Amino acid sequence: MYNIGMAKKITNSSTPASLSPRDQQTLSNLLNMTDHVAKQVLRKRDPAVDIPVRALSNVSFNERKKIIEMGKRTSLRQLFNLSQAKSFMQTMLVAGGTKQLIEQGKSTSIRGLYYLLKHTIDGVKEETFDEQGDCDNIIEDMEVLLNSLREELHLAAETRGNMVGSITITDKGDDIDCTRMGSGGYAVPSIVESSVIQFKKCTAKFILHVEKGTVWQRFNEDKFWKKHNCILTHGAGQPPRGVRRLLYRMHNELNLPVYCLFDNDPWGYYIYSVIKQGSINLAFESQRMAVPAAKFIGLRSQDFTRCKLSDSVKIALNDQDRKRAKQIAEYPWFANKKAWQQEIAMMQENGFKLEVEALTSRDISFVTEEYVPQRLKEGGFLD
Amino acid sequence: MYNIGMAKKITNSSTPASLSPRDQQTLSNLLNMTDHVAKQVLRKRDPAVDIPVRALSNVSFNERKKIIEMGKRTSLRQLFNLSQAKSFMQTMLVAGGTKQLIEQGKSTSIRGLYYLLKHTIDGVKEETFDEQGDCDNIIEDMEVLLNSLREELHLAAETRGNMVGSITITDKGDDIDCTRMGSGGYAVPSIVESSVIQFKKCTAKFILHVEKGTVWQRFNEDKFWKKHNCILTHGAGQPPRGVRRLLYRMHNELNLPVYCLFDNDPWGYYIYSVIKQGSINLAFESQRMAVPAAKFIGLRSQDFTRCKLSDSVKIALNDQDRKRAKQIAEYPWFANKKAWQQEIAMMQENGFKLEVEALTSRDISFVTEEYVPQRLKEGGFLD
Repeated sequence: MYNIGMAKKITNSSTPASLSPRDQQTLSNLLNMTDHVAKQVLRKRDPAVDIPVRALSNVSFNERKKIIEMGKRTSLRQLFNLSQAKSFMQTMLVAGGTKQLIEQGKSTSIRGLYYLLKHTIDGVKEETFDEQGDCDNIIEDMEVLLNSLREELHLAAETRGNMVGSITITDKGDDIDCTRMGSGGYAVPSIVESSVIQFKKCTAKFILHVEKGTVWQRFNEDKFWKKHNCILTHGAGQPPRGVRRLLYRMHNELNLPVYCLFDNDPWGYYIYSVIKQGSINLAFESQRMAVPAAKFIGLRSQDFTRCKLSDSVKIALNDQDRKRAKQIAEYPWFANKKAWQQEIAMMQENGFKLEVEALTSRDISFVTEEYVPQRLKEGGFLD
Repeated sequence: MYNIGMAKKITNSSTPASLSPRDQQTLSNLLNMTDHVAKQVLRKRDPAVDIPVRALSNVSFNERKKIIEMGKRTSLRQLFNLSQAKSFMQTMLVAGGTKQLIEQGKSTSIRGLYYLLKHTIDGVKEETFDEQGDCDNIIEDMEVLLNSLREELHLAAETRGNMVGSITITDKGDDIDCTRMGSGGYAVPSIVESSVIQFKKCTAKFILHVEKGTVWQRFNEDKFWKKHNCILTHGAGQPPRGVRRLLYRMHNELNLPVYCLFDNDPWGYYIYSVIKQGSINLAFESQRMAVPAAKFIGLRSQDFTRCKLSDSVKIALNDQDRKRAKQIAEYPWFANKKAWQQEIAMMQENGFKLEVEALTSRDISFVTEEYVPQRLKEGGFLD
């Protein structure tokens, strides 16, 4: 049989007292799961774990909560089942690895965890994990199984995205005054849980989240956050998990509205959809990452005429754009919203898309001094 | 004839007094160039600009300075030449646009500049620029023509890469103490010229530059920069211009050695080569971005045995890797270095590459507590 290695240590250890309440909770969930397996073994039953099904068939849009959610279907993962034995072992390995991280108070990347756990199994030539994808799958299982984000399992991702504005946070004990961050800004880390980041002071009235770093630079250079007393963030395109989770926390804990400034194209719509409702592939995160009340402040299909733009800034839609726009219009959370249906239909009719940077053709600071202030003033956003 | 639009404004204006000395210098170079063109016109000569040739044939490795450099070849760009008229006009447009940016004290992205300058030319159906690439080419011409980095022309790029450690900088008037930046760190901006960023206090003894953000997080979490009194940076892979330029400035102005921790693979070698000698495509930047004294601290091909790694962490070289490794070995700056030749030959012989994260298989903090400290202690790096 496979030598699972860390299983013994897991059942024997207790929760170290120095851990944060959240870490203690996560560790306790982890140990409950592995204790359950150990008890099955001691009772001479076949060890197994019930894993929630992470398939599109088990995902739906919750109309009340306005987020993408996982259903309740689970499937049994057994050790004594030839097709499941390896993934059972991998599940225990990932449990052991993340337990080690939490206890040591350290974090690593999914790549780091993969290397930490990858080894040739004693007595056979089989590897514990053949490739990164195997390990990633198990990490996602573990997240749903324990109802913990991977960040709570001390797994960090690459970071993208910066923040400035009327907020002071405490990050690992350091106070960071985001009104004093120069042109560069605070780099939003991957793990922004309350054990790492606390909100110390916030006078901001709202959050403006823009799509691209270069547009963010324009807003920061014009000190938009100062004039309008807000927080300014970006996620370098599709925002990474850390930025989404931070938006979620600031929205819910500080009661701040979130306005999104994205391109007028299917990709901009899609990013907005992920921030607002969650992503279909990672539905289990939505309840702790999605911001259903986030508003889309532009660009809009009507902006070509409304902002008196010239033909030069039009970018023709290609077949792929038209197809994606059609798909997005059919998302359940857009399907019964008249304004969104009109918005997407108008883009299709126009036959072109518009980037936020197109507003530069009016003036370098048109977007910060006229476009966004005007939308905020008139309440002109899509929901 | 084309209506160049901004030409009139350019020749009439003078340098605003409120500009930084560097901005005044850049603007003065810009105006010298355009005044020269205007004088040609007033003397009824054919207007033309002499543009340095940005082709591989005009690039070479300067053995003394140890950087990739451009040669002295130039080519004449004339208005009254059917094949050059459009690019002549574009050159004047980019000159006008960047002049506007400098005078307004604002910056924009190359995308923003493109939109700022793109328009349908009066009386014809021709666009000033058909696509972004047209404008980018002219921007690069302008850099070599004026001997100015694009950042000095107030053109910003997307940012990547963070910094923490024993340094306090002033960024647009805000003091940023990089020992107090929590887990996220300071986001290195795109424009790090002395007009934006000044070094206020620095007790660091060296800079450790790592390849990936997730590895940087490991070093930051272990407070490596505190234990070893250094500055810790990363560039999320191939470092963006802002990070390279900041490394250059800290190396030269603060006299700090730069150690690079990259993967043991052709990509890692390549990134090192760019930091050290410059990039072949943008040779004119090397004199203000390359750090010829940068050292390669690892990973090394010998680390598989030296660090007692298991077979599990090997990643087999593919044909592309072997080909790239061979090309890199032939770069003039590696060609006559015995240690580099041995290094690359050993990787080819091994038949596998190693990621920095492979060290995690020894321990989460092996890289921060043993690998790098050991290399620093024994002076074990490649030059």
